[in-house]
Amino acid sequence: MAVTPVPELARRAKAASRVLATASTEQKDEALLTAAELLGERVEELVRANAADVAAAEDAGIAPGLVDRLRLTPDRVAAMASGLRQVAALADPVGEVLDGWVRPNGLRISRVRVPLGVVAIIYESRPNVTSDAAGLCLKSGNAAFLRGSSTAVHSNVAIASVLRAAVAKTGLPEDAVVLVEDTSRAAATEFMQQRGLVDCLIPRGGPSLIASILEHATVPYVIDGDGNCHVYVDAAADLDVAERILVNAKTQRPSVCNAAESLVVHASVAADFLPMAAAALRDVELVGDARARALVPGMGEATDTDWSTEYLDLKLSVKVVDTLDEAIDHVNATSSGHSEAIVTTDVHAADRFLGEVDAAAVLLNASTRFVDGEEFGFGAEIGISTQKLHARGPMGLRQLTTAKYVVRGDGQVRG
Amino acid sequence: MAVTPVPELARRAKAASRVLATASTEQKDEALLTAAELLGERVEELVRANAADVAAAEDAGIAPGLVDRLRLTPDRVAAMASGLRQVAALADPVGEVLDGWVRPNGLRISRVRVPLGVVAIIYESRPNVTSDAAGLCLKSGNAAFLRGSSTAVHSNVAIASVLRAAVAKTGLPEDAVVLVEDTSRAAATEFMQQRGLVDCLIPRGGPSLIASILEHATVPYVIDGDGNCHVYVDAAADLDVAERILVNAKTQRPSVCNAAESLVVHASVAADFLPMAAAALRDVELVGDARARALVPGMGEATDTDWSTEYLDLKLSVKVVDTLDEAIDHVNATSSGHSEAIVTTDVHAADRFLGEVDAAAVLLNASTRFVDGEEFGFGAEIGISTQKLHARGPMGLRQLTTAKYVVRGDGQVRG
Repeated sequence: MAVTPVPELARRAKAASRVLATASTEQKDEALLTAAELLGERVEELVRANAADVAAAEDAGIAPGLVDRLRLTPDRVAAMASGLRQVAALADPVGEVLDGWVRPNGLRISRVRVPLGVVAIIYESRPNVTSDAAGLCLKSGNAAFLRGSSTAVHSNVAIASVLRAAVAKTGLPEDAVVLVEDTSRAAATEFMQQRGLVDCLIPRGGPSLIASILEHATVPYVIDGDGNCHVYVDAAADLDVAERILVNAKTQRPSVCNAAESLVVHASVAADFLPMAAAALRDVELVGDARARALVPGMGEATDTDWSTEYLDLKLSVKVVDTLDEAIDHVNATSSGHSEAIVTTDVHAADRFLGEVDAAAVLLNASTRFVDGEEFGFGAEIGISTQKLHARGPMGLRQLTTAKYVVRGDGQVRG
Repeated sequence: MAVTPVPELARRAKAASRVLATASTEQKDEALLTAAELLGERVEELVRANAADVAAAEDAGIAPGLVDRLRLTPDRVAAMASGLRQVAALADPVGEVLDGWVRPNGLRISRVRVPLGVVAIIYESRPNVTSDAAGLCLKSGNAAFLRGSSTAVHSNVAIASVLRAAVAKTGLPEDAVVLVEDTSRAAATEFMQQRGLVDCLIPRGGPSLIASILEHATVPYVIDGDGNCHVYVDAAADLDVAERILVNAKTQRPSVCNAAESLVVHASVAADFLPMAAAALRDVELVGDARARALVPGMGEATDTDWSTEYLDLKLSVKVVDTLDEAIDHVNATSSGHSEAIVTTDVHAADRFLGEVDAAAVLLNASTRFVDGEEFGFGAEIGISTQKLHARGPMGLRQLTTAKYVVRGDGQVRG
């Protein structure tokens, strides 16, 4: 089969997006539920396609952990289907009136939530993203324009084919879900340059993908970036609360972006807190500055690089500060703008940290691990934005929409 | 004097932005009012600096119209000062609570409006943009990082110096306003690449500037794009209303982005409406399709290029369509996504056009000329966005902000 060129695929997605933009919630939910059902019915076909990817990955000597992320089992397919059912149950964001007012000349202006149009998602490895992303796009009235990795291409093609069949079955255009099967680097670059056809590009992957977006993309994009998250234990912290939060933020799931990577402690509690923390984090490698090391025997030395490193592993950098100002400055200087927490009982310190730290989410006496779409109550998320434009923090259905002004008059002209 | 490198200037703006982010409304307003006063006091110095730019432009043989746009008179300086006073009188968007809810585990989440940080603006010709942009940035708690054109450099330096002095006088950091004096192309490219320091870049200029942004920018940006605006006269239009709106949209100020560039007429009223329209638009060059030309003697032929051209001049393309669907398809195919109007008395046609046309603003029975910040009641605008991410349509103070999640707990950890 000849490979369809990327611009032609983008045009198909754009045409479908016009229909999806005005599809009713009922129609979209029916498509989602039908897709969930069809994933169940065609599970064997999906697992078979996936086996080809898994075999190729093993032949290529890919690390077992990564191969496992790639693997589709009947349970994992069932989880994808259940994800689509969850999205069907969420409120439809489209049509929400965000604002409305009347001008002195009688013009009635309202700002109404509408779909973005074509949402392009470029992602690595895990094939469930194909279904999860398509589901969120569909519910929010967008066409999903997808480009997965070469390691998962057979799985992605199979999943997309099931989703397209389901959408077509309910009378919506099958191009609501368009997968670029060409996994070459050239196709990836082309994918980022469909200006006028793609309304928003969301990369889900590591630093090299982000660098490629910055270099090549000509379409608007939202960066789902790193999380170099800090927990600051203030002079007025309840140290038991601080320990509980630190342990949870660091160890509950170290491989994710909202896990803590750095501990900042006020000097006045460091002598009490650091030994407690070190004992509670027995399995975590600690690296610190001179004052932290003096309080915890065996702690390694933190280099300048450590302060801005997202370990995604059982490792934590530790810094002792003399003042709240120093803590805020250090966090702002090294933060990736994801999630930053303070533990304190002091209202003034809390207000200053929450007000002055520049991040998508700032937390008082709570674990950074809460910063995601599920925990925030959005029901599902497509990523967590660390940029400030358009979407900041967890991105749910609303963040896959834009607004348009609807202006109603009765013949007004400008004087 | 040695030229300060662009990254160093960006760092200064970033440092200032930290202070501005938590400045009180009172402080910011005082800075704006002081700047307005100082512009008045130092008007001679401004006019003298501007004379150098005007002389250089005249020597270079720049067209008189452009030289006039460049010129500063005492009246124009007074208008800049009055603009700053107007911005001082607007409501401060910072601190607005956009949403708030409590999670089942007791976490209290709120979404709070905060400044973007450093807003970079690159602009052409008119020196008043220096003052207008700085004023809007200051009020919204952002540092203004500015890069004007070489033709206005003396004027811009003088204006920035007055604004910086005023800001410093009120105790805020003078780097709240930072102007890049280096007007080389290399400096412009560097200006677009201060990733990590610039939070939002807004270009104000023509297609070549936009192309340069798409090619070089690595910071997030909002495009203030073209306006290829249509007026669609429906089968059920009141033709007198249609004529009034069309004349206003086309001729009230043809050189701006919200002026109409194209007329689309339903075939059932074309024979009545087109001769009326042609008579009312005597000074406007009309080019049309075959059916339009058959109804208006002397009308030129529209080429494919015409349908997507923003003339910014007394010229209008004219198309006859058989159905509302054809009108919507034509508008969506050729629109630049700015402002699109329908004239009709038919509720069903109105709903379909307003719902299906994909633009920042859709209008019913009103002139496209109303789509700007002043007319929408925002008090002032920094541009009109034709992209869908972050800001769409007129950009006022709110569009110069982002949000952050503030999460308050009492020791919650994730299970």
